[in-house]
Amino acid sequence: MVGHGVLVSDSHVSMSQLMLPSDANPNGHVHGGTVLKLIDSAAGVAAKRHCRKKVVTARLDEMSFLHPVLIGNVLTVKASVNATWRTSLEVGVRVEAEDLETGATWHVASAYLVFVALGDDDRPTAVPPVTAVSTEEQRRSDDAQRRRNARKTERPRA
Amino acid sequence: MVGHGVLVSDSHVSMSQLMLPSDANPNGHVHGGTVLKLIDSAAGVAAKRHCRKKVVTARLDEMSFLHPVLIGNVLTVKASVNATWRTSLEVGVRVEAEDLETGATWHVASAYLVFVALGDDDRPTAVPPVTAVSTEEQRRSDDAQRRRNARKTERPRA
Amino acid sequence: MVGHGVLVSDSHVSMSQLMLPSDANPNGHVHGGTVLKLIDSAAGVAAKRHCRKKVVTARLDEMSFLHPVLIGNVLTVKASVNATWRTSLEVGVRVEAEDLETGATWHVASAYLVFVALGDDDRPTAVPPVTAVSTEEQRRSDDAQRRRNARKTERPRA
Amino acid sequence: MVGHGVLVSDSHVSMSQLMLPSDANPNGHVHGGTVLKLIDSAAGVAAKRHCRKKVVTARLDEMSFLHPVLIGNVLTVKASVNATWRTSLEVGVRVEAEDLETGATWHVASAYLVFVALGDDDRPTAVPPVTAVSTEEQRRSDDAQRRRNARKTERPRA
Amino acid sequence: MVGHGVLVSDSHVSMSQLMLPSDANPNGHVHGGTVLKLIDSAAGVAAKRHCRKKVVTARLDEMSFLHPVLIGNVLTVKASVNATWRTSLEVGVRVEAEDLETGATWHVASAYLVFVALGDDDRPTAVPPVTAVSTEEQRRSDDAQRRRNARKTERPRA
Amino acid sequence: MVGHGVLVSDSHVSMSQLMLPSDANPNGHVHGGTVLKLIDSAAGVAAKRHCRKKVVTARLDEMSFLHPVLIGNVLTVKASVNATWRTSLEVGVRVEAEDLETGATWHVASAYLVFVALGDDDRPTAVPPVTAVSTEEQRRSDDAQRRRNARKTERPRA
Repeated sequence: MVGHGVLVSDSHVSMSQLMLPSDANPNGHVHGGTVLKLIDSAAGVAAKRHCRKKVVTARLDEMSFLHPVLIGNVLTVKASVNATWRTSLEVGVRVEAEDLETGATWHVASAYLVFVALGDDDRPTAVPPVTAVSTEEQRRSDDAQRRRNARKTERPRA
Repeated sequence: MVGHGVLVSDSHVSMSQLMLPSDANPNGHVHGGTVLKLIDSAAGVAAKRHCRKKVVTARLDEMSFLHPVLIGNVLTVKASVNATWRTSLEVGVRVEAEDLETGATWHVASAYLVFVALGDDDRPTAVPPVTAVSTEEQRRSDDAQRRRNARKTERPRA
Repeated sequence: MVGHGVLVSDSHVSMSQLMLPSDANPNGHVHGGTVLKLIDSAAGVAAKRHCRKKVVTARLDEMSFLHPVLIGNVLTVKASVNATWRTSLEVGVRVEAEDLETGATWHVASAYLVFVALGDDDRPTAVPPVTAVSTEEQRRSDDAQRRRNARKTERPRA
Repeated sequence: MVGHGVLVSDSHVSMSQLMLPSDANPNGHVHGGTVLKLIDSAAGVAAKRHCRKKVVTARLDEMSFLHPVLIGNVLTVKASVNATWRTSLEVGVRVEAEDLETGATWHVASAYLVFVALGDDDRPTAVPPVTAVSTEEQRRSDDAQRRRNARKTERPRA
Repeated sequence: MVGHGVLVSDSHVSMSQLMLPSDANPNGHVHGGTVLKLIDSAAGVAAKRHCRKKVVTARLDEMSFLHPVLIGNVLTVKASVNATWRTSLEVGVRVEAEDLETGATWHVASAYLVFVALGDDDRPTAVPPVTAVSTEEQRRSDDAQRRRNARKTERPRA
Repeated sequence: MVGHGVLVSDSHVSMSQLMLPSDANPNGHVHGGTVLKLIDSAAGVAAKRHCRKKVVTARLDEMSFLHPVLIGNVLTVKASVNATWRTSLEVGVRVEAEDLETGATWHVASAYLVFVALGDDDRPTAVPPVTAVSTEEQRRSDDAQRRRNARKTERPRA
């Protein structure tokens, strides 16, 4: 039974952007910061679509940059809500690049971000529950719950 | 029978972008130039995906701005190849905006752009034919051909 | 007799900008979107100078990109009011590029944009009439009127 | 005895930047992506200063955004090399903000990034060893080694 | 007799730009750095138009910011060559702002910049002489010569 | 005796920034305007830290660009308050660049800027006195006073 929450597909977002020379770092590849900014943007849109409230990035889980991105590539960032808790939610992001000359695509990075929903008083407020429908969505929800439990047992950093 | 061309769906592109304060014009709405730049970007990506060659914008057909876009909206630009000719092709673009607070979406603008494919010598080169499959794709192809015929009979501008 | 309107020369604007590497598209030429943004900016300034009110871009007529622009070129956009109607006006734009190394200049594009003037309530408001003085200004006014009549007979797009 | 490596203080970097309206997200705070881009920039400078070779971001460890940053604040990002391995190194980053009106400062975020050094053939190449001198530097080096061991035992993500 | 140099009017440049929210500093006025960047751009274009060679900014004379510029104003920077020497030249710049709502204009700043022309080997190379025609141009040339003499007697800074 | 003013070290600021391709001018070096913008930013931060009030740039003294800056260099701008008067203060700025490949650093430019402090009514307001402690700070204060006296005897420009 799937309950009465907001569907994962209702807030899913896909943002593509052509990488221009103004996105380059000094060695001519796309700046890692450009990729990070797009990840934060796309994840924030998914989170806000789900909550229909103001949201702020609270945490970015560890992520790896698997392959570089070149100027002229199209970068596509797909984000969807994995799991929700009382006033926060986890968004999963997958970044892919495409070489427009050949059509080749590759996996650039994956990331998990936690957002907190804020009310008009800028204090944490309730997040509507998400409803995982497919087996894949259910698996992502379970993984997100596991990551949340792991975060809670982490030693806080000085 | 659909022939041996490249499918419309093979080059279709959807680019979404969150409108930030740096996209604003002095009255606080999104700058028309920001919208035009995204239209040109998305259409160029569709054209290049279709040709897998360098392409340049040759023409932008008349277009209307139906509704304004506000900072904080998500702008989504969808582009697909309507028709191809010997060394050029027409790309149709539809721009929509979404208010992330309410989920409301609206039609911002539609545009038709003509691109020319260039070879390594920067001279026009052959464009692979597009294959319209659905009735909708076929209708767009017919409309594009009609627009092309109309362009040919226009008086050139001084 | 020229009437009591605002002179074309009162709102004429010429904007020049040096094309920097941050204006480039992936193949190293100036991004078509950069040119479109400058066109919209210059035309908007001419429209606002004429009305001394808030204006929004309502329409961009078909335009051709005749020649590419390179990084290091100076792009000059000249805009002037061609004709006025009750709450709208047409601005004509001519874009030229200059190679600073040789002094060569060339015609990049021409465009016609229609703006609507808005009152404090964001609803269309009266535009002061323009006064065409020279023969050239009178010819542009007649052409603008012809384009307006043609727009009215166009079939609206779905 | 401290060995013959490069000193931590030799590559330490502090980058400050005034947060401008163009760094804002739609709710008027500084965009999380702007902070992430500065973190990647500062960490990359520390890594390159240490190696004097081309470096690429390989990994960003989990990080929390503790407090928001406002337009007009000065953001200061301090980065230093924590530990080195054969072809990679960890850089620790601390982000602080300052309210220029009151002089108040606060901790915005901390992050750990792993960079890989690349040779002229774009393949991983040797990183010179870092020499931790102070007790604080030694503690950071030990922590970095612990994080590296933990990364190795992580289950790879699909 | 005016000699065989390049006319002042041949390299005169006027650059206008609409001040957008992305040009603002935290208190909402136009960033002084934005004005300085436009001054350097316009002066560089005049210098390069005169020399038709690569030029680099060597010096910016003292300048005062007389009045602030607001978002929505049009900033106009006029630059022309005042005087030339063996491998350098002085460009005078005048910056004005216009309030598009009222049509009011005001003087924002004036500046004098010295550029050096560089040959293909990046070393100083000969600058073609400028020809001052009008009385105003002649006065500016005399003033520039006086400033140059004053610069030569300045004590170099540590 | 050092008096009761604000210490020079309390408002000293050091801003570093990695020069990216988007900072380049057409010949591939860093745009002089980018350097000028950073100078104005850093000096403004020092001035505001000293006053803890709104400040505006009133004047930029003559400055020389001694050496060019390349893409990939780190630009470091150091600014500190030299002297204060009733409602204004002088900030000294030193710009250095570093080649990250070799570690070489060089002096790019020095500049003196005068800021005026503004009250809530946007009119000049009192600046707290600065206290020069070291011999170097005292020398800079004396030099600043000398420059101020010289400025007062300058003939105003038309």
